[in-house]
This record gives sequence, C-alpha cells and structure tokens, in this order.
Amino acid sequence: MPAAPPLIPVILSGGAGTRLWPLSREMAPKAFMRLPDGETLLAKTAARALSLPGVDELVTVTDRELYFHTKDLYSGMGDRRPRNASFILEPFGRSTAAAVALAAMGVEARHGGDAIMLVLPSDHLIADGTAFATAVARAVALAREGSLVTFGIEPTGAETRFGYLECGDPLDYSNDGPAAFRAERFVEKPDEDSAYEYLATENYLWNSGMFCFTASAILGAFERHAPKLLSALQPCAGSLRSSDASTLEIDPDLFAPIPAISLDYAVMEPAAAAGDVAIVRGKFDWTDVGSWEAVAELAPPDADGNRGQGERVTIATRDTFVHAGDRIVATLGVENLAIIDTPDALLVAHRDSLQRVREVVAALKARGHDAYREPRTVVRPWGAFTILHGGPGFKVKRIEIKPGAAMSLQLHRKRSEHWVVVAGTAHVTHGDRQYAVETHGFVTVPAGEKHRLENRGDALVVIVEVQCGDYLGEDDIVRFEDRYGRAK
Amino acid sequence: MPAAPPLIPVILSGGAGTRLWPLSREMAPKAFMRLPDGETLLAKTAARALSLPGVDELVTVTDRELYFHTKDLYSGMGDRRPRNASFILEPFGRSTAAAVALAAMGVEARHGGDAIMLVLPSDHLIADGTAFATAVARAVALAREGSLVTFGIEPTGAETRFGYLECGDPLDYSNDGPAAFRAERFVEKPDEDSAYEYLATENYLWNSGMFCFTASAILGAFERHAPKLLSALQPCAGSLRSSDASTLEIDPDLFAPIPAISLDYAVMEPAAAAGDVAIVRGKFDWTDVGSWEAVAELAPPDADGNRGQGERVTIATRDTFVHAGDRIVATLGVENLAIIDTPDALLVAHRDSLQRVREVVAALKARGHDAYREPRTVVRPWGAFTILHGGPGFKVKRIEIKPGAAMSLQLHRKRSEHWVVVAGTAHVTHGDRQYAVETHGFVTVPAGEKHRLENRGDALVVIVEVQCGDYLGEDDIVRFEDRYGRAK
Repeated sequence: MPAAPPLIPVILSGGAGTRLWPLSREMAPKAFMRLPDGETLLAKTAARALSLPGVDELVTVTDRELYFHTKDLYSGMGDRRPRNASFILEPFGRSTAAAVALAAMGVEARHGGDAIMLVLPSDHLIADGTAFATAVARAVALAREGSLVTFGIEPTGAETRFGYLECGDPLDYSNDGPAAFRAERFVEKPDEDSAYEYLATENYLWNSGMFCFTASAILGAFERHAPKLLSALQPCAGSLRSSDASTLEIDPDLFAPIPAISLDYAVMEPAAAAGDVAIVRGKFDWTDVGSWEAVAELAPPDADGNRGQGERVTIATRDTFVHAGDRIVATLGVENLAIIDTPDALLVAHRDSLQRVREVVAALKARGHDAYREPRTVVRPWGAFTILHGGPGFKVKRIEIKPGAAMSLQLHRKRSEHWVVVAGTAHVTHGDRQYAVETHGFVTVPAGEKHRLENRGDALVVIVEVQCGDYLGEDDIVRFEDRYGRAK
Repeated sequence: MPAAPPLIPVILSGGAGTRLWPLSREMAPKAFMRLPDGETLLAKTAARALSLPGVDELVTVTDRELYFHTKDLYSGMGDRRPRNASFILEPFGRSTAAAVALAAMGVEARHGGDAIMLVLPSDHLIADGTAFATAVARAVALAREGSLVTFGIEPTGAETRFGYLECGDPLDYSNDGPAAFRAERFVEKPDEDSAYEYLATENYLWNSGMFCFTASAILGAFERHAPKLLSALQPCAGSLRSSDASTLEIDPDLFAPIPAISLDYAVMEPAAAAGDVAIVRGKFDWTDVGSWEAVAELAPPDADGNRGQGERVTIATRDTFVHAGDRIVATLGVENLAIIDTPDALLVAHRDSLQRVREVVAALKARGHDAYREPRTVVRPWGAFTILHGGPGFKVKRIEIKPGAAMSLQLHRKRSEHWVVVAGTAHVTHGDRQYAVETHGFVTVPAGEKHRLENRGDALVVIVEVQCGDYLGEDDIVRFEDRYGRAK
C-alpha cells in the first residue's frame, strides 16, 4: 500500500505591520512581536502546524528581508522547531494569490499533485490545538476528495473587521467532528447592520483566511480562474521545479509585474460560484490579533481591569492596557486607553479608536518619518543592532553577534569604527591580521580598512560601536565575503 | 545726601520637583525646566528681578548640588545676566524661614540693615513686568517705613491650591499705584466652600510667597517670633559675616538640626497678628506653574485645543497636552490628557488628575525606583552626562564638557574607560602625559590610572564613553584636583 500523500503546512508570513504600530513595523511584522506570554505568533503558528499528525515539513512564504529572522525564530523553538523547513522568499509583497500558487508549484514538484497543503497565515492565534486538529482532519478528508476547503469561524459578535463565508448545503459526515458546508459565497467585510444580520441568521461564518487543498486542485483552480496570473508566475518559480531546493529567492524583476491580489478574490470566490469550495466550521477560539485590543486580551487583567507588560505605576486607572518598554510608564486618572511605548515612538489611543492606528502609520509615512518602517533594533542574519545615540558626524550602536555567526568581511569608505567588546569574545579580522578580543577589549578600524567581526563562542557577543565620519549611512559598505549571500 | 539703601532681590530656588514629574525631578527642579518658549522659570525670575530700578545684585539661595547649574543658567542669559550674583548653598532643604534669615544676615553684613530685600520664589511666572515693578515700588516704600510686606494676588477663581491673605484696613497712598492693606491674617489652603466664600467677599488675596522688607526689619521679626531658629542659624552663617564673600556653603552638620518651617509660619503669621505686616495687592497676572495644567497653558492651542512641544501626530485628539522628548508621540481618539514623555519615564494623565502627580512620585520613591530623583541627563559643574545604555559590566555615556571647563584629575579603581571624541578637541591628562585629542580621536584609560578631560576650546566637547568593569557606581572615584571644590 503506498503511503498517504503528505500534509504540508504553508505559512504565509508577511504583513505591513501597521495595525500593531509602533511595536510592529514594516520591517518588523506583528508575527515577530513578543506577546505577553513571551512567544511570537509565528512560533505559535509553526508549532501548531507541526503538531498536526502526519506533518514533517513546513513551507514558509515570506519577505527575503525576514528570512534570517524567521530561521532564527524557528531555531529558537527547541524541540518544537521544524526539522524540514523550506522557504519561498519574496522581494516584496504580492498578496496571497501569488504566494499560494508558488507554494503549490513547489509542493507539487517535490511531493506530487496529491500532496495536501494547509495554508496558514502566520499571525493567527488559536489556543485550542485539539479542536484545530479536528477541523484540519475534516478539511484534509474533503481536500482528498478534490475540494478547495476554507475554514469558517463561528462568529462571537457582529464583527465588521472580517470577511464572511455564506454556508450552503451541509456536507454529509460520518462522525461527530466539525460540520462542513458547500460554500455559497465569500462576503467582503460588512457594515454593522449586515454584520448583525449575519450573526442572527447563523448561516455566516468568519472567513479565517486558512485553507486546505491538494496542490493539483488549487493549481487546477488557478488554471480555470486566474490563468494569466499562473502563467506570469511560471518564470518566477525557477528552482522550485528542482525537487531538492529548500529555498527559492524570487527574482524581483520577474515578480514586480505580478498583480497583488488575494487568493479569495483570484480563485476562491469564482471557485465557490462553480461549487468547488467547501467550508469546515471551526469550533475553536480564533483571533487574528489584528489590533492592540486583541493583544491586550492576552494579558490577565488586574482588579481594575488594567493589563499590560513592563514596569508600570497605575493610579486611579481603569481598563487600560500599557505596553511599557525600557522606561517606566505612569498612568493617572485615565480609563480605556491603550499606551504602547517603544524606544522611538509612543502611541496613546482610546481603545475604541485602535482600528485607526493605520492612520498614524500613514501620517508618518507621508511625513517621511522612519518610525513607520524599522524599529530601533534592526535584525540582521548575524544578529542585530540598535542605534543608541547619534549626532553630527557620529553614531553609537549596540551590536549583538549570535554564537557561530559572522558579519561580512567589509570596509566602509567614509567612516571609522571604534569597538568595545562588552560581552563574550569577538574574533576580529582587521586587514591581514586575525585575533581574538576578550570582553572589555577594544579595536579601532579606520575608514577604508577591511574588517570582520565574528563570534566563534557559545555565548552572545555584544559590542558597543562608535562610528565616526561625515557620512554614516548603512549603504556605505563594500562586502568582500558574506555567509548570508549578501556579497554578490 | 547719602545714596538710598539698595534693593536686593533674593531668589529662593529649591523645590522637590514632584508636581511636574517626570520632567522635573528631585535633582532637576521645575525652575530649571525649559518652558514651551525655550526659557526657564529661573531665568525669567532673575531677569524680572534685575530689570527693577536700582537693582545691581542678586542673592540666590539654592541646593549646593544646583550651584553650577544655576551659575551656567545665569551665564546663558546674555545681556540680562546678573553681574553681581551671590549664593547661599544649602546641603539640603530647610524650607523658607531658614533661607530668608540667612539671606538677611548676608544682606545686613554687606549693605547694612536698611538694605531692602525682595524675596522671590524661583518658579513663578509673571508676564506683566511693568505691573510687577509698580507693585514692588509700593512694597519698597512700605518696607522703608519698617513694614514686612507680602504680595497678594487678586483671585481669578476659587482656587484651593494656594494660601490666602485676609486684608485689613487699607493703607493710605498718595498716587494711583496698587492698593495696600494691613494684613489681618494668613490663611492656609482652604477647602472649596471656603475658597468660594473668599472669592465672594473680595477681602482675600492669594498668598504669592513673595515678600519685601529691610534686612533689619525681618531679622527683628525673627528675634521676636522665632528667636531659637535665629540663634540656631548663627553658626551656619559663617562667612556671610565677611563683607566680600559672594558664596556661602552651609555646613551640613550645623544645618541638619535646623527645623524646616516656612517663613509664613515662623514669622509672618505672628508678625501679622502683631500688626507689622502689610499687603500690596498685585494687579499683575501670576502663576506658580505648579502643575502640568499651568505649563500647558503656556503653549498656544491648535484648532482642536491641543497643545504641546516636540514631534507629534494627533488624530481625533482634543484638548490634549503632549510634551514629546526625543521620540514621536502619536495620539488617537483621546481628549483631556496630559502626556509627558521623557527618556526614562512617561506620564499619561487625565488633566483633571494632574494635581495627583506627586502620588506617582511617592510610589516610585517607595519602590526605590530612580526615576523620581534624577533625570537621564545629569548636570555637573563641568557640563553634563547622559547614560545612553548599560548592561552587566558596562555602561555607555554621552559626556559634554563646557568651553573652559575640566573634569577633576581622578582615577577609578574598578573600571576602565574608553573615550571617543565626537565633537570638539579634548585635552587629556593621562598619567604623566598631556595631549590634545581631536574630533574622532580616542583614548583608553585602564582602571587605576590618573586622568582628566578638559575643554580648552570655545565649542562644546562631546565624548562617547564606554565604561567597563565589575562595579560602575559614580562613587568609584578618587579626586586629586578639582576646580569646583570637589577634591577635598
């Protein structure tokens, strides 16, 4: 008897990071944000997927700038880390249709068209893993029969933030697992009146954005409903066609003309009209952690309904959520606020207005202010750096190099660098010399001289760097060698 | 004809800095805080005093830790700076009675008992300098006749934050200047009902805390009403007795037993009962800038009633005051808030609760949190330092050395220091050597080696210092020479 076709979770990890600003940023999406329990949504999603029966491999579609960050996050999952992780790296976002089609091509090439894909956004929170697994089992059974399966969540309120799925005829099922229906249609985010109507009729479910289908079924649906998109994606697929490639980096020139449309719009809606889509009703708790309100609910409230993380003083304060960073946050005589404090930006919002956070991000972007894009701490393949201070002609950074990692062999034309090693032992290449610098040792590298910092130890190396020069942009770098493919 | 006795303003500059936390701190009182117009209350007070006719000298009573900060602030006043500034430096606060008595002893010693003192708290705001000068002229005339004069402010509301003065019989006056009255009594801060009653009777004025009297009149009143306090202060006066001393540093051992009582309580109230106190009614605007509410009113409002300083994004925000520091502050859907952002502490308060800020400070103090005491930037006689970052075994500081200033010749037993000069030219003493270090140059000083940093130029010297060692407390310092008397 041949083995059953494998179940391959495909995690879609991108997102503009606007709704959880200022903690999430364009270059630090919410899936990477530490939740009040210390874990990230991405790690939770990966762990949930990997704990499903029959799962041995994980496909992640993400921005190429987030590749190393994602790999590090997976490595940090300990026993739960993915043993077989493959990546599709996009140079920029092109919405979910392109991401799912490329993942399907890869899965088909490596595992055949009968392999079953479970498409999961990286930033959903589901606490009840058992109920989730039960729903997935039902979806897998339907997918095997050729259905394109979507997961509908039973509404707990007249929510206007989500799209809805209208359920058609129920599909037979032989056990007492979750119910399934033929999908009648996909409904856009409704107005409030419609949302109340949907809630009352009990015939509508929230569209969770999770899907299950065989690679051949979804590719067939692309052929029928989005043939142009599919053929435009063929040249992008490149190395996906080779069965041993675990990472595809998509060529930006080929990817740029791809339209940014959602899988729902490109394929699922027309497929539902054609009767090819099934809905599995999820009986599990589910949140897309799409707002600070949802994040707040992850922390336990105190007697006054206040929640939060970090060092706080709350006086005459009620129902307020405070995310304190490295500073103390005092609240006095306020209620129903969300206060999100980060090293370079602060948000103070009424909880009823949190859905408008993206307006703040848009205002920052319009002003050309950097705080919409990158957080103060920037993650790199070798570790991370934080800009501590700067002024005319100088910049002070904290640099962390991971065990076993190395920055590129590089030089800067316009700046000198002074390093003080404040934790661990750094291995330095400076011109033709190589030597170790112990904790509290220092090195000066004048402009124009080749250098490399490396961590050959088991503990984090931390360096305080003072850069001096008339031009201090990150683009003043000539790379000679790089372990992470950045020297080309 | 002998010259008229001089008018000597005495500025009382102390204050616990709790009501304007987190911008003011125990070691950074509100008089030093930059107002929305860029000036400080202390500079405004000094300028107001020095612009009075006949004023040529200024006495300042302050904490000795604030001496150099105060001198620098006066130096920065340009043409309006005091040419003759003398100081009485307290090791800790002992309220206003002790401060005024010591100032009176000094004024009597240098200028004789007929010299007139004008006692001014450092943190009052009076925009109408002409009306103020007119009131002072009336007070000076009454003081010459031997009265102890206090300034009463016509109430603009039923304020419970201030004490009141009850006016007795009006005093004759021959011109159309401000009215004056015999003081009937001093009234403590009233409850709200009493405040409304005082407002209605028109017989009560706010007690401004400003006074005018001859040195001999106030010392005479001390002899009559507080003889024990006066004799306890005699040994503290020390060098004040010498007519050329411009600075008195009070011995902490002698000052410690002095009771901390106010001039009102110790002298003015009993003197009023004895019929010796006159009230001049001030017709000028006056605020003691005693709360964030008062600070907010100094900034012009936008169309939505929002006020503030610094980089802000305001969306759906009304009647909110934002003091932004070096980070951007976004507000969304809020109203009637005060948001005070500083590098190490954030306050978010409803404007109606601002009088309770001291509860936050008390909570911090009870927790042993440093944020009640010192701001992130600490002022020193030679300049200032800011702690940028720290971790186990290291600390990163930005150090600013003023032109012509020098740190002490010192050594640290337990830490090494790495300096990168990022602005100006530093003059370094290191062991037996002395040399100049230009911008972008660096120096390393191992633990146990003597060193000194000096600025011989005309521009600010800025240094980034990385300290390394197992113990990094400010008290690990052995001083060999110090220009500011700190080497003893």
